[in-house]
Amino acid sequence: MDASDILALCKRRGFIWPAFEIYGGVAGMYDYGPLGIAMKNNIIDIWRKAYTLGEGFIEIDGPTIGPEIVFKASGHVDAFSDSIVSCTKCKESFRADHLAKGLHSNPDSLSNEELSKLLRENGVRCPECGGDLTDVEDFNLMFKTTIGPGAGRVGYLRPETAQGIFVDYLHLYRFVREKLPFGVIQIGRGYRNEISPRQGIIRLREFNMMEAELFVDPENKSWPRFDKIKNEKMKLVPNNGDEIEITVGEAVERRMIGNATLAYFMYFTQEFLKTVGIDPNRLRFRQHLQTEMAHYASDCWDAEVLLSYGWTEVVGIADRGCWDLSRHIEYSNADLTAFKKYEEPVEIEREVIKPKYELLGPKFKGKSAKIGKALEEIDPSKIKNGNITIDVDGEKITVGSEFFEIVRIKEKVTGRKIVPHVIEPSHGLDRIFYACLEHAYTQKSDGYVVLRLKPAVAPIKVGVFPLMVKDGLDVRAAEIDERIRMSGIASYYDDSGSIGRRYARMDEIGTPWCITVDYETLKDGTVTIRDRDTTRQVRIHQERIIPTINSLLCGTPFSALEQ
Amino acid sequence: MDASDILALCKRRGFIWPAFEIYGGVAGMYDYGPLGIAMKNNIIDIWRKAYTLGEGFIEIDGPTIGPEIVFKASGHVDAFSDSIVSCTKCKESFRADHLAKGLHSNPDSLSNEELSKLLRENGVRCPECGGDLTDVEDFNLMFKTTIGPGAGRVGYLRPETAQGIFVDYLHLYRFVREKLPFGVIQIGRGYRNEISPRQGIIRLREFNMMEAELFVDPENKSWPRFDKIKNEKMKLVPNNGDEIEITVGEAVERRMIGNATLAYFMYFTQEFLKTVGIDPNRLRFRQHLQTEMAHYASDCWDAEVLLSYGWTEVVGIADRGCWDLSRHIEYSNADLTAFKKYEEPVEIEREVIKPKYELLGPKFKGKSAKIGKALEEIDPSKIKNGNITIDVDGEKITVGSEFFEIVRIKEKVTGRKIVPHVIEPSHGLDRIFYACLEHAYTQKSDGYVVLRLKPAVAPIKVGVFPLMVKDGLDVRAAEIDERIRMSGIASYYDDSGSIGRRYARMDEIGTPWCITVDYETLKDGTVTIRDRDTTRQVRIHQERIIPTINSLLCGTPFSALEQ
Repeated sequence: MDASDILALCKRRGFIWPAFEIYGGVAGMYDYGPLGIAMKNNIIDIWRKAYTLGEGFIEIDGPTIGPEIVFKASGHVDAFSDSIVSCTKCKESFRADHLAKGLHSNPDSLSNEELSKLLRENGVRCPECGGDLTDVEDFNLMFKTTIGPGAGRVGYLRPETAQGIFVDYLHLYRFVREKLPFGVIQIGRGYRNEISPRQGIIRLREFNMMEAELFVDPENKSWPRFDKIKNEKMKLVPNNGDEIEITVGEAVERRMIGNATLAYFMYFTQEFLKTVGIDPNRLRFRQHLQTEMAHYASDCWDAEVLLSYGWTEVVGIADRGCWDLSRHIEYSNADLTAFKKYEEPVEIEREVIKPKYELLGPKFKGKSAKIGKALEEIDPSKIKNGNITIDVDGEKITVGSEFFEIVRIKEKVTGRKIVPHVIEPSHGLDRIFYACLEHAYTQKSDGYVVLRLKPAVAPIKVGVFPLMVKDGLDVRAAEIDERIRMSGIASYYDDSGSIGRRYARMDEIGTPWCITVDYETLKDGTVTIRDRDTTRQVRIHQERIIPTINSLLCGTPFSALEQ
Repeated sequence: MDASDILALCKRRGFIWPAFEIYGGVAGMYDYGPLGIAMKNNIIDIWRKAYTLGEGFIEIDGPTIGPEIVFKASGHVDAFSDSIVSCTKCKESFRADHLAKGLHSNPDSLSNEELSKLLRENGVRCPECGGDLTDVEDFNLMFKTTIGPGAGRVGYLRPETAQGIFVDYLHLYRFVREKLPFGVIQIGRGYRNEISPRQGIIRLREFNMMEAELFVDPENKSWPRFDKIKNEKMKLVPNNGDEIEITVGEAVERRMIGNATLAYFMYFTQEFLKTVGIDPNRLRFRQHLQTEMAHYASDCWDAEVLLSYGWTEVVGIADRGCWDLSRHIEYSNADLTAFKKYEEPVEIEREVIKPKYELLGPKFKGKSAKIGKALEEIDPSKIKNGNITIDVDGEKITVGSEFFEIVRIKEKVTGRKIVPHVIEPSHGLDRIFYACLEHAYTQKSDGYVVLRLKPAVAPIKVGVFPLMVKDGLDVRAAEIDERIRMSGIASYYDDSGSIGRRYARMDEIGTPWCITVDYETLKDGTVTIRDRDTTRQVRIHQERIIPTINSLLCGTPFSALEQ
């Protein structure tokens, strides 16, 4: 089995297919078909509930287009790029690090100049036509557009949903009643204008993300429920050593993982991935090398799954430190801080400006009260050459030292402002979707395919068949199908071909159970229910179908029906 | 009450707020906050289930960026524009039809030249600075970008999700086993680079859509379940008359509505809007005037709701005819047709080309068999000046009339290819969301606000309060809150301020029920459950909370608990 088998099945049965095919397609763009979107939504649903209902995260949903300043602040305008070379003859473009593979142990770590030199010295030419290559340059990976008419405003399609959360920090901090830690999720599209994407839905120009941003106290990166899971195990590949299986608690104690919150959410990610159907034996966490870390990250672990493409990142769990909030503070002047209370109020001494109101009055007349108030509030460090410039109703007024004195005061302070740090589990939804398919794919020697999807993830839960399309069996089956659908469970009626063919069609798309209406149904109201993975069958009464399916969906083993 | 009250509540409580506020905001862009996204997802869920589980529609989910040719074919590159004027002094831009309001009965119907003349003759100047205005021009409303590096390919952000469905027609027709009618939905972002959007989330540059495309037989626009609803009533404003309340069946019989499928989905839309909380007394269907119809529509009805902004379109239900599929056939050469079987096979006579193989052989040697086959398949109408040009393995070969003859043959034909027509209910999700809030908003004379949202739509279903934060009441309440959340019902624990304040906070965000843990709870395990709309309270046992809430969510009236 390789990716082409999965992609062929996906296209034939309606999970995913290349977008815009009637126009020759666009590299890096796919459509989710009817089965794909149902399965994707099931994964989203499990993830959203785990974070919101399970861990108390809140959710937001913002625009995919953002104004340039947001991505100046986030660093993406300057740093979100790949190294590109183009052919001077056929004009095709390539990622320079891809062409340098095999010529250097780690092409990613080279500068554009070094890459240019490496390619030149090795006589690398255009892989398409053999033409000369240009020098290596940076290519920014954001899709650019214009907001509004005329020259308008430069805008970009977001490369991550995270920035939409950071710029909303003030609203979110207020919503959680100004307490750390708190977590926020966002689910939606991300965009990355790849130079020449291949590899199915592993590398898309438009993709689906599920991101969580946790705002934590930089001095206390603990997590309330950490103790509950500290004895659970994870498979780690730290950047300074070999793969090791270790408990979450020990990984933190031995400082392999930087802090308890990061470790908790790595474990949380592992459990989520297992829940949706990732094989735990093909899952590990690999720590980023210092040289491969994104511009915003101070530590990062990738959840990697083993696919036919090799080990593939599906989730990145990064400690973004104070990078994002600090940058947005710098660019927006907004007060993106949290107030950290001291255990006890502290008495401090500080210098303040004391205005001489008796001199301000005659000089500044009606404005003197406002000027005095502004002076009281401004920090004495702002005094330049003995004068201080203040802002009163939008007017800048310079006040000489004769109008104020500097005094020391004592005051009680109950806490101080801190810039929270951010821990981010960022999920590539399309990759997780694909990994679920690959890990579920089984093929018998005769070519018979069963997709052993987790029932909660399977796009269709129940196939409903009449044994024959006559004697009212089809009418009864169609009624049962409708009743199941109306109860909110996705079912599929099929009366074409032999029962064996119909089971095979359902097995191939991962439908966990099939119900067949036969002549006994007409006599005693019972139907057969068949289990995908064991192919065993049990008779149940038709009135018990919906509660039975619901109970199986909640995890009751099929064998329990056999007793 | 006006829109500013709703928007202020939305921002304060976390339904929606203007996006990128720390950078001064971007006109026409909003964020959904934690309550907003939960409520939006509830609306989506109801809509999706109505169409998929209820009417058997399939769903897809494609990219938001599309290559230029898709929107050339759809007509958007040429026809999706507004008339714009700019100020020659301050460079601000305006919609010309907005500036012409009051100067003409229907500025929308004027050409750019007529609009320019109208504005000039009336001495209209820049509303911002009084400067001179430019001539009126077309401004295309699609956001433009570049796909891939370098000059790349021109791409646009989709103005509607519909085109993603049309270009997938072949996959979808195969998925439904090649039968008409069938329906496809897509839910996601749409983009419209408005010239100067205002009006909260009524006019957004990036918005959320829910679109359904029904592919129907042009000669038979009936719908299977039409008869079930034909005696139900709708309020119509036809384009040639006054508002009328009429049954669905009569509206079709009297040809006010063009066909039964269009009428069925107008009624279906009405019922959906009532389900999510639109007041039926503030809902009507208005038929488009010929001059306001989109370039693709042959008939269109807007579901309009009465808001503080006036009557506002929330859903457009259009008969797009064969416009889209025909255009994509023209631009892509793909065979986007359905095969329509005749009731009986029909014998027809037609002319075909019969190759003279005995002459082809000596002349064309090894290619002669392929040439002969190509000749057999080509339509005789393609003969030009006695010769015919065929395509063999990519090579164009012209064959003279001496190599073939034209013969008449009789054959049985079982059906023919038709281009399906499309009926489209297209929903503006943000507007529906907003309309639900406005229609739910009630304010008592003392300023007390209750949001009477439908329970299925409300972002939080249950508030959980301890009467006091002591004696273990808070611990018990927190346990109950957690148990409710873990069962999949959104609940909210609150222990701050008086019980009255807490009820008020929940009433203001539309939470239908509140549970209070008090001293009796410690004695007998019962809690109070309070109904938002009647403010009545009933005691139930804490073990009955989850089934009770589920039963209320399914529509059991609160009064049933009181018996």
